[in-house]
Amino acid sequence: MSNPTAAMLVIGDEILTGRTRDANMYHLAGELTGRGIRLREVRVVPDEQDAIVAAVRALSKSVDHVFTSGGIGPTHDDITADAMAVAFGAAIDVRDDARAILEAHYKRTGLELNEARLRMARVPEGATLIDNPISAAPGFTIGNVHVLAGVPAIFQAMVASVLPTLTGGDALLSQMIDVNRGEGEIATPLKVLAAQFPDLSFGSYPYQRQGAFGTQLVVRGTDGGRIGAAMVELAKLAKPT
Amino acid sequence: MSNPTAAMLVIGDEILTGRTRDANMYHLAGELTGRGIRLREVRVVPDEQDAIVAAVRALSKSVDHVFTSGGIGPTHDDITADAMAVAFGAAIDVRDDARAILEAHYKRTGLELNEARLRMARVPEGATLIDNPISAAPGFTIGNVHVLAGVPAIFQAMVASVLPTLTGGDALLSQMIDVNRGEGEIATPLKVLAAQFPDLSFGSYPYQRQGAFGTQLVVRGTDGGRIGAAMVELAKLAKPT
Repeated sequence: MSNPTAAMLVIGDEILTGRTRDANMYHLAGELTGRGIRLREVRVVPDEQDAIVAAVRALSKSVDHVFTSGGIGPTHDDITADAMAVAFGAAIDVRDDARAILEAHYKRTGLELNEARLRMARVPEGATLIDNPISAAPGFTIGNVHVLAGVPAIFQAMVASVLPTLTGGDALLSQMIDVNRGEGEIATPLKVLAAQFPDLSFGSYPYQRQGAFGTQLVVRGTDGGRIGAAMVELAKLAKPT
Repeated sequence: MSNPTAAMLVIGDEILTGRTRDANMYHLAGELTGRGIRLREVRVVPDEQDAIVAAVRALSKSVDHVFTSGGIGPTHDDITADAMAVAFGAAIDVRDDARAILEAHYKRTGLELNEARLRMARVPEGATLIDNPISAAPGFTIGNVHVLAGVPAIFQAMVASVLPTLTGGDALLSQMIDVNRGEGEIATPLKVLAAQFPDLSFGSYPYQRQGAFGTQLVVRGTDGGRIGAAMVELAKLAKPT
């Protein structure tokens, strides 16, 4: 069985100007890997309609699922919903189902559902709402694109709402081992091993701990037995201590 | 004066599988902003030649400078240098200048310059080397693409080697203010202000601290006087306490 594929589109000037360190990419990557969905690409673009539309069109053609993060709040720079409508040629307006969710939320909290907040009920025609258990304003799925909030706690809650609805793949397993040699010393035997296990992928990541150099080796694949066999060989790369 | 533009290409399965949380994007974004260079886009792609080549070609056409991160070590999954040669139609082999740097380094450290490590001297024809003060193996610049290591300490050192060689732009200034109202309450006056200051960009970022909701407002631009004038108006959005 092959694994479904995904891409992520992070929307936000705050990432590109260095104001904010993105946290959503790392979270989504781990969640997708755990469900056997391969994250193939991430793009980060500014709060500009043309850039968002071009990126989401390109990504939605190249993978099974696209996840976007950011730009669905109440302010003038929140333009993701309108950009999705343009990208998919869909009409967009305040939708009754989304408005009802906001009305209930603001009634409960005693705040006013003003014009700006009502913007968060703008959802393209044909889209399915995504539950937001934290601050009510929903995300939505249009075509194969899941449109989520940028605030990390809300992003994570929305990912938890969406993921169970997707078909996963064979679990992507990994094992790792630390080897007390520099990357350059084990590169050649590692290459030989990678050729012997073409169904697995081998990553090597150098580290330095308390002055000693070493390499963390990671094996990834879907067959636990094969990964185990590769690990036996990798362990032989370590120097006797 | 307009500001030069940049894009970043992060190369690495370890980011897309969720093994590693990227640190280089945040660092580069801050450094570029400080020099008046606008980071317009970031892409993250796997360790696959076709994906790297397609991304670097697209980005190098759309901005003034591209920075890549990752894939220039000694192991079989380090394929960035060869991918750059393909992208630019350049020949690639071990280059004497890069080999001399590695020879001096390994002589000094008493380690062997074996075949795998010599891979790190593979540099496309016509490229200029980038100094690596930490572990010697150089990065390089080809066309408008700066090819840097993925290990954060080395990435940062290489950024420090490259940035002084680039022409910056008017400094991108920003000021921020925390306002004790929810985003939805100030969205309408904020939109009016954004229209009054079309030369500035306004970002709004909701937060929750000790149970109280508020919004951080950020104004960005190149004219300090205009930013100051906008800040005076923004301060009026706060509730009296």
